[in-house]
Amino acid sequence: MTAPAWLAATGVEWTDEPSVIAGRRVDRSGVEPDGMPLAVAFPRSVEQVRNVVRAAHSTRTSIVARGAGTALTGASSAGAGVLVLDLSRMDRILGIRPDDGVAVVEPGVITAALDRAAAAHGLRYAPDPASLEISTIGGNIATNAGGLRCAKYGVTRDAVLGLDVVLADGRLISTGRATLKGVAGYDLTGLFVGSEGTLGVVVGATLRLRPLPEPTTTVAASYADVAGAAAASVALAAARIQPVLAELLDEATLDAIDAAQGTHLRKTGSALLIVQIDGGAREAARAVEVLGRDATELRSTSDPEETAALLAARRGALPAIERLGRPLIEDIAVPRSRLAEAVREIGVIARRHDVPICTIAHAGDGNLHPIIVAGESVDAAEAAADEIFALALRLGGTVTGEHGVGVLKLPWLRRELGPANHDLQRQLKALFDPHGILNPGKAL
Amino acid sequence: MTAPAWLAATGVEWTDEPSVIAGRRVDRSGVEPDGMPLAVAFPRSVEQVRNVVRAAHSTRTSIVARGAGTALTGASSAGAGVLVLDLSRMDRILGIRPDDGVAVVEPGVITAALDRAAAAHGLRYAPDPASLEISTIGGNIATNAGGLRCAKYGVTRDAVLGLDVVLADGRLISTGRATLKGVAGYDLTGLFVGSEGTLGVVVGATLRLRPLPEPTTTVAASYADVAGAAAASVALAAARIQPVLAELLDEATLDAIDAAQGTHLRKTGSALLIVQIDGGAREAARAVEVLGRDATELRSTSDPEETAALLAARRGALPAIERLGRPLIEDIAVPRSRLAEAVREIGVIARRHDVPICTIAHAGDGNLHPIIVAGESVDAAEAAADEIFALALRLGGTVTGEHGVGVLKLPWLRRELGPANHDLQRQLKALFDPHGILNPGKAL
Repeated sequence: MTAPAWLAATGVEWTDEPSVIAGRRVDRSGVEPDGMPLAVAFPRSVEQVRNVVRAAHSTRTSIVARGAGTALTGASSAGAGVLVLDLSRMDRILGIRPDDGVAVVEPGVITAALDRAAAAHGLRYAPDPASLEISTIGGNIATNAGGLRCAKYGVTRDAVLGLDVVLADGRLISTGRATLKGVAGYDLTGLFVGSEGTLGVVVGATLRLRPLPEPTTTVAASYADVAGAAAASVALAAARIQPVLAELLDEATLDAIDAAQGTHLRKTGSALLIVQIDGGAREAARAVEVLGRDATELRSTSDPEETAALLAARRGALPAIERLGRPLIEDIAVPRSRLAEAVREIGVIARRHDVPICTIAHAGDGNLHPIIVAGESVDAAEAAADEIFALALRLGGTVTGEHGVGVLKLPWLRRELGPANHDLQRQLKALFDPHGILNPGKAL
Repeated sequence: MTAPAWLAATGVEWTDEPSVIAGRRVDRSGVEPDGMPLAVAFPRSVEQVRNVVRAAHSTRTSIVARGAGTALTGASSAGAGVLVLDLSRMDRILGIRPDDGVAVVEPGVITAALDRAAAAHGLRYAPDPASLEISTIGGNIATNAGGLRCAKYGVTRDAVLGLDVVLADGRLISTGRATLKGVAGYDLTGLFVGSEGTLGVVVGATLRLRPLPEPTTTVAASYADVAGAAAASVALAAARIQPVLAELLDEATLDAIDAAQGTHLRKTGSALLIVQIDGGAREAARAVEVLGRDATELRSTSDPEETAALLAARRGALPAIERLGRPLIEDIAVPRSRLAEAVREIGVIARRHDVPICTIAHAGDGNLHPIIVAGESVDAAEAAADEIFALALRLGGTVTGEHGVGVLKLPWLRRELGPANHDLQRQLKALFDPHGILNPGKAL
């Protein structure tokens, strides 16, 4: 299959070189799409995106927009007949206005690059998905990405004030605003955030920056079991403490880290809770007191190097688990009080299917990442994942806390939404994209 | 006109007593609707709401849902032929789950009542519109209400996790989730928040509660002029300080307060900035230092009684202004750096039209409330308001920061959104409400 003739007419840079296409038909989910995309286009301007989308619309060609391809759900996978719109070259920070607390960016900006640019003004871009050094703002917006510090500072949606979006027919709209507050009209901004490229192509974003807090206090507390760690996390709120992050690592995760890093984390307890506080010395002291009540060991620091050492366990968790075999990274959220129950049940599921599952949780907001070490047992891993989704719904939770739906969670989405909500969402999709050319078969 | 026969068949309590109807056809905007509504229904359950909406849908009867009627835009005004759906009797807090950081409520719950109930668990409901003692959660959701402390803690949207909504045809859907994080499907929750009852009737909400912070430090600083006060507010962010609230009162407002309360605020400066900090002693000390640089007078306290005294000026501002004549309370937002310019230009507009305008601003997020003292000069007041809206757009802002569109700002909405966005929003409205029975003629 060759690239369509109309592509050349749009003025956009493009290629149908198989090796380039091959790298842009998959994301980090492991989802293998059927066949090869037509071509990859590399727009450098809003006008080029409009040209491509307009032509795709009139020729009924499917488009998959992508940033860095770090999706864990297949959301940016692209199969036969699809044109890949690679937005990674639209990577300019168009402006940072410190006095307004606002940044204006193109979608291909790397998340951490924006955060660093903001830091030069004493500000920061708060959402911090684990992929922040490689993922793009556009991809973060497409999935409404979360992260560690969103327990206190919110997810991507909370940082997006306004968007420039190319609609399915090539029209350009601006949603939201350049002010910190505003309620004119329906919240289209929120509708595009998390829509995984199925409603429009985001070509620009006005983002909120927040004051960079003072140096933080970091506490690493070990507990006899996950229930103890989860209870300690819940106790923070009762003590009026709002942690920046509260990361829980279960026994299997600690074993994996010890094996990889030569540490002895499991010696001090079967669960580790890492908490960060930036609300001042008094809040930090209270946090140490609360977390220490049932801890088997506790370390606390405000020193940057020691902080990095305490966080090393969390940062090294995924690489350590990857040494055990190919990981299937899951992502559910439950009401915070059900966290211990969820981790315990995931352990039961792991034993039933005889697949190792290491669970890391953003405990502050009840968001769990059970990481299934698939190895050769792909069927067992998938069966375990299905049981984990069912567990999430049974506990009053959701099948995706921050990674999105993509293709991997499509079968579960309708169950979670219910038929009336799901039908309404399909009608919305049809309204925005009547010919179904935008990332078809994803998210809904 | 008499109430329709089908109303009795729905099982809902209702009345067409003219005195009851008269009190429920207007809100606090002063908008006078044409004619009298058919009747007022007082549902007490989701099923009753569904029965009424279903019957209204099949008879093509327009419905205006209302809570306490505190809208400032005409959003809850109801004219001839309309059925008013008064949700104020669905006022139960169905549950507070402190460990989850979540409350589940009916729409008629008074905002402050929820906040007090949360406080018993060391938590709070963060959004605090000035009307919080009389407005309902349902009304707050309908307008995406803001408030004072949203500079740090966000607006209503940020506190809404999930909604139960009766659609125009009587179907019931649940949007969002009961967890703190979740990205399954499109963000319908955000779409309903701020839609002013035009897309569905909110009959239940799952809300986020946050830890109640430690006692705060409050600073009241006077400045020689508005520019000085605005600059001090902007300087906080540069010093990495995130105030809970930052309220700016201009010269005309201080004069009104002095006249009403016998204070001497104007003696110490032509603008007053009241800032509250809850991020610990160090942040508070830095705030005092930053605010003090150019202040003509500064007072700071952490004592609850003294705090109340410092806030008394802000709380008493509207009553003081009301003594001057009937107020037209406006609501624009601009990029924070344009705040001083906006206040200055509003002063010019006031002089040009010879109407007093007192401006209070939530300086932390660039949201201004120019309060036009209309008196007898209704035409001059409206002309001044129009110039204020034009000013907001010229400065890169919005014609409504937190009060909504209702009917008063309809003429300006399309100008702000632009035709493509506005058309898309009208299509959305048609999708959700094909017969146009939900709060027709409002918000869009």
